[in-house]
This record gives sequence, C-alpha cells and structure tokens, in this order.
Amino acid sequence: MIYLDNGATSFPKPANTLNAAADAMRNYGFNSGRGGYTASVKTAEKIYSVREKLGDFFNYPTQNIAFTANCTAALNMAIKGSVKKGGHIIISSLEHNAVWRVVNHLKKDGIADFDIAGFSYDDDETVGNFERLIKSRTSAIVCTAASNVFGVALPIGKIGEMAKRHGIRFIVDGAQAAGVMPLDAERDNIDILCAPGHKCLYGLMGTGFIAVRDGVHLETILDGGTGSDSLNPDQPDFLPDRLEAGTLNNIGIISLGAGVDFINSFGMDNIYSRELEHAQRLYDGLSANKNAVLYTKRPEKYKNAPIVSFNFGDYPSEKTAAVLGRRGIAVRAGLHCAPLAHSYFGTVERGTVRLCPSVFTTRQECEFLINTVKKL
Amino acid sequence: MIYLDNGATSFPKPANTLNAAADAMRNYGFNSGRGGYTASVKTAEKIYSVREKLGDFFNYPTQNIAFTANCTAALNMAIKGSVKKGGHIIISSLEHNAVWRVVNHLKKDGIADFDIAGFSYDDDETVGNFERLIKSRTSAIVCTAASNVFGVALPIGKIGEMAKRHGIRFIVDGAQAAGVMPLDAERDNIDILCAPGHKCLYGLMGTGFIAVRDGVHLETILDGGTGSDSLNPDQPDFLPDRLEAGTLNNIGIISLGAGVDFINSFGMDNIYSRELEHAQRLYDGLSANKNAVLYTKRPEKYKNAPIVSFNFGDYPSEKTAAVLGRRGIAVRAGLHCAPLAHSYFGTVERGTVRLCPSVFTTRQECEFLINTVKKL
Repeated sequence: MIYLDNGATSFPKPANTLNAAADAMRNYGFNSGRGGYTASVKTAEKIYSVREKLGDFFNYPTQNIAFTANCTAALNMAIKGSVKKGGHIIISSLEHNAVWRVVNHLKKDGIADFDIAGFSYDDDETVGNFERLIKSRTSAIVCTAASNVFGVALPIGKIGEMAKRHGIRFIVDGAQAAGVMPLDAERDNIDILCAPGHKCLYGLMGTGFIAVRDGVHLETILDGGTGSDSLNPDQPDFLPDRLEAGTLNNIGIISLGAGVDFINSFGMDNIYSRELEHAQRLYDGLSANKNAVLYTKRPEKYKNAPIVSFNFGDYPSEKTAAVLGRRGIAVRAGLHCAPLAHSYFGTVERGTVRLCPSVFTTRQECEFLINTVKKL
Repeated sequence: MIYLDNGATSFPKPANTLNAAADAMRNYGFNSGRGGYTASVKTAEKIYSVREKLGDFFNYPTQNIAFTANCTAALNMAIKGSVKKGGHIIISSLEHNAVWRVVNHLKKDGIADFDIAGFSYDDDETVGNFERLIKSRTSAIVCTAASNVFGVALPIGKIGEMAKRHGIRFIVDGAQAAGVMPLDAERDNIDILCAPGHKCLYGLMGTGFIAVRDGVHLETILDGGTGSDSLNPDQPDFLPDRLEAGTLNNIGIISLGAGVDFINSFGMDNIYSRELEHAQRLYDGLSANKNAVLYTKRPEKYKNAPIVSFNFGDYPSEKTAAVLGRRGIAVRAGLHCAPLAHSYFGTVERGTVRLCPSVFTTRQECEFLINTVKKL
C-alpha cells in the first residue's frame, strides 16, 4: 500500500513510537497522579516527561499541557471554555468541522454568534479580514494553522500579533501543522494551541492535547475526578488537572512523547522540507496532467502544510480515490469534514482527492501516484 | 509487585488484549469511516466488531455504542446531554466526582439542580430514597452500579424499574461494575450506560464508551468531524456518529474488543465469583485484625463489586498505603475522587485504603496483604 492519507493519521508510526507503546503497556499501565506506590509514581513521572517535551516543543509551561482524546476534544474545550453568553467568535473560512460545528452549536444555543474571515494568499489581507470583524464583545479568534484539505497556511504569527493588539484570545487548531510547521506560543501569541498527537507528532491514535498560556482561564466542559482537590465540587483551578478529568490514555501519551523525540532527532525543519518536496512533486506531476484539476498555488515553505488536493477530469472525488485504491494507493476523498474550505475553493459538490505524504513517503511513491493518475 | 489497584485500572492486561493492541498498531492504525481504501474499510469493520461485542454484552444495539476517552467523558456526555434549563437530577450518595462535579457544574451554571438519594443496605429503602426525590421536572436519575470506594452495589434493576414507571431517564455509571457484574439495558432499564474500557473490561487505558438505548436523544457536548453528513453544521442525528467527534483511539478500542473476548471465554460470572472470593478473603482476614477498620458488611455476590476499603489503627490512609507500598503492595489511599461516598461512610477526614483484586490476583497475594497488615 502507498499511504498518502497522513492527514487523517500518520502511518506507519516510527519504530521508537511503537516501542514506547509496547514498553508503556508493560511498565506504565498504571493510573498516574492517583496512587502513591512506585509504579504509579513512575508512570506519573513518565507522563510528566511528555508534557515537558510538548511544552518545550511549542513553548508552553510544562504543566499547561493537558492531554485530550483528540484535537477535536481540545478545540471543544478551548472554544466552549472561552465564551460567555453574548460572546462573539471569529473563525477562518478554512475551518474544519471541529471548529465550525462547535461555533454553530454555540450559536444554536444562543450563547455566542460567529463570523467567518476569508482566507487570502495575501497575508495582510487575511489579517485585515479578521480584524474588520472584531466587535467589542468578541471573545476569541479561532484559526487553523493550515487547511486540512488544501494545505494552505494562515499567517498565524500575524493574526496572533493583531489579536494581542486587540486583547482578544487567540486559539489555533494545529491539526495539520503541529509537529511539522513552526508554532510557538510566545512568538506567535497563541493563547491556546489544540493539536492531535497522532498526525504530524507521530503518536498513536487516541491522543491530543490542549496547551494553554499562563493566565488563560477556561471554563470546563468535561468535569470529573482528577486525583486532586477531591473535596472541591468544581474542577481544580490549576493545570493540567483542571482540563484532565478521568483516566488518561497513558499508552498513547507515552507513544506521543516518543513521537516528539523522533521529530527532534530528525529535525522538524528537515521533516517539513522533505514532506514539502513530496507535496511539490505531487503538485508538479499533476500540473503536467491536463486531466488533473488543482486548486491552490504551488506549495511553498511556510505557506503550506504538505497537503495537495486535486480532482481528475469530471470524476467525483470518491470515484478517483476508489480507482487509486484498487491500484494500492490509499487516499481520502470527499469533504474531509471541512465544508467551509470547500465552499471557499468551489469544491463543495464533488469534494477533492487529498494527498498527504509523511516523512516516510518516498519519491518513488509520489511518482507512482502521478503515473497512475496519468493512466486513469 | 502485588497489584491491588485494579479499581484505578486493571493490570496486567490479558495476553490477548496486548496482542490485539500490537496487531492493531500494525494493521488497524487507519482512520475508520473516513477513507474508502481497503485498510480504512478493514479498520472500520474491526471497530464495528468491537461495538458489536459490547452491544451484545450489555444488550444495546450495535450502532448505539459510541466510544469515548474514558468513563468520565461518557458521563459528561450522558448527563449534560440529558438536561435542559430548569431540569433536575437525582444522584446517589455514593457517586464519584465524574458525576458529582458534573451535576455541580450544571447547578453552578443555573441549568439544573440536583438531589442526593441515600444508599441503604435495604434495596427497597434505596429505591424509595430515589423515588421520594422525584419532581415533575426531574430529567434523569444518575447512579453508580457500585461504589468505587466501598464496593457496595446499588439495586440497578430496581431503580431502573422505578425510573421507567415514572418515565425518567436512567443513567448508570458502570465504572466498577461493567465487565464483572451483570448489567443489561433491557432487563435493568438502563437508558444510558457509561463505562471505562480499561478496568473490568480489560482494554487499554484511554478507552470508554457510552451505550444508549434506541430513542434516547442526547444533546452533544463534543462537536466536530464525524466523516459523515459533513455539510450539516450540527452533529449528525444518528448513532454512533452523533457522539463520536474526531479520531478514535483505534488501538485501545481494538484491545477492548479483545478484553470482552477474554471475559466471554472465561465467563463473566466465573470472574466475578473469583474476584469476590478474593474480596471476601481480604475482608475476613482484615476483620480478624483488631487494628483494621472496615466500613461495610462482608462483600456478597450481586451486593458488592470486588472492592474492600479499610484503615489501619489511627493511621491516615496515605500512611498505610505508603507502608504497604514499601512492602511491594500497590494500593490506593485517600478519597478516590469520591468525597460523597466518604461523607456517607464517615471517612472524609482520612480517606480509606482501597483493595481491588482482579481475575489475575492470587490467593497468596491476598494472604500476603493480610499478613503484612498484621505486622504493621
């Protein structure tokens, strides 16, 4: 199988990730932060070390990294936890349903309404599109770092700077960027970063996190036991406990720590360059095919996550993916849970075929895809 | 290590659970329900088979099993999804913070208030205690199947029958019972069952589920991509998609399926009998120790989960657990995230030392615990 669906989850995982998971099943399958016995304490230390790795990676304080089931859970916690009745949210025109459905729910419940800022290839225009929508009651700007369908990146640092100027909370969906494109809490003014652990960070599925800057308060949407402050009828007011109710996915979290180690040993920028070369190769190869329809500019560093969307002739995207599937190429078709982005790029009707290489993708695999599309 | 903290998470996991996880990492680490390629479809089928196993086990329709990060997430979804503004909830006096903090949050937000029904060793009295608290605006009765601290079981079938008579939704926290004590959607009238996958069901940590009877509608607290109905700004109205936003923990879920297989091959009733014998052995051994303080009646089948709480002399529970820890016995002390239950049994001040055997616990290990406490 030629796997080009790394935007859904990365596969394969690095060997050290799988080894860490196997080790965790043997040695760290204990409830951390609850027991006082050695195995529980050692487990807690191990989990802490993963917070530390992620904190260092994205420039958040260690204890401000809270683990979640996935990026979606983190985004729900970030957005719903940030708005009060009468609030207002600004999102980008490229958001995933993990953002769009959340703000729509808040609107339906009469809690907060939202506006959509259009993406532009001109960064200043994009920032202006957000800024123009600010109201005195705007609670948060929520923005994906890069479209999960088209790969185009939003100017996170510039939007963050503008949000800071207006004193508005800035929440970033790092689904397709965290682990491959640079994101830094302080430099980019990201008040809350939400990310999956199982995509560009190479951990197992069932992992994600919410990273919060000091002083950013969140109401909770998931309440329960934290092994701390147990007489308190409310969630503890300190992190990470406030945002971590119930038993954690130790095995997944420990694999995620190994994923960060893997990235650090390889160098994130090297991984990004390599994956982007693949994306460019795919883009160029398809550009040369008169039957292939592309929707974006050529992927460029810091302007794109390594993702390319296309269609073939007048085929529905599902048909193209099915044909490729029969030739042993795994790609995803359809709307990719992001109808907003498809509205923006005019592909709502038939969706797109999405190509997402990972660091393990080879040049030969990309060429096989290009040649297979040629012969369709 | 003698591990008697299976109430936090079961350890070790059965060999077939670990093998299933290893197999899943190699063969089912793909996003289910999103891709149309073979690996994704096979993964979806595998995940479906786990829904089927759990549905059969607890008597819910297959598609009404939705996977969650843990039991706590499931309880949040069940309770918050069941109440409207002005609602009222009845909980038992033995609830975990996964219930108590949730209803307290609803109260604090002015959405719903709650009352607490006292546990009694007399089942009819317990049922009466719930029934007396019913108001016309009562939205749900929420009840743990067995106390996570003291092991005492609530008469789920009888409470369910009473709830049905009043037309009130019945939500059960199966944290310490699901997989070891009989729970049946239809027989016990359990409208919503919430359970962890990593305790008595022997799956990996990071697993849990919410099982919903046909016709039970839930508002959602976690919204996002479901790989279905993507143009819909709301969560889909069908299960399990409505309750499953974002990427699932495939590895954990598949291990959970193997956990159910393990229980079925052994026979749940055999496991329960074996664990209960251990609990009785521990109880009897400690009863014979004049320095050991016990809080409940002797554990009996169908009246108790296999859990015993005790204290030693006038030691704080943490001190006893620390001493036992140094002798190689892993037990948990403190409030076990359940202050309500401690209020009821008069142990809020020093908590308790909790002993939770699993099917892998041996008679010798129980005797070692008893003898160690003798020599304290």
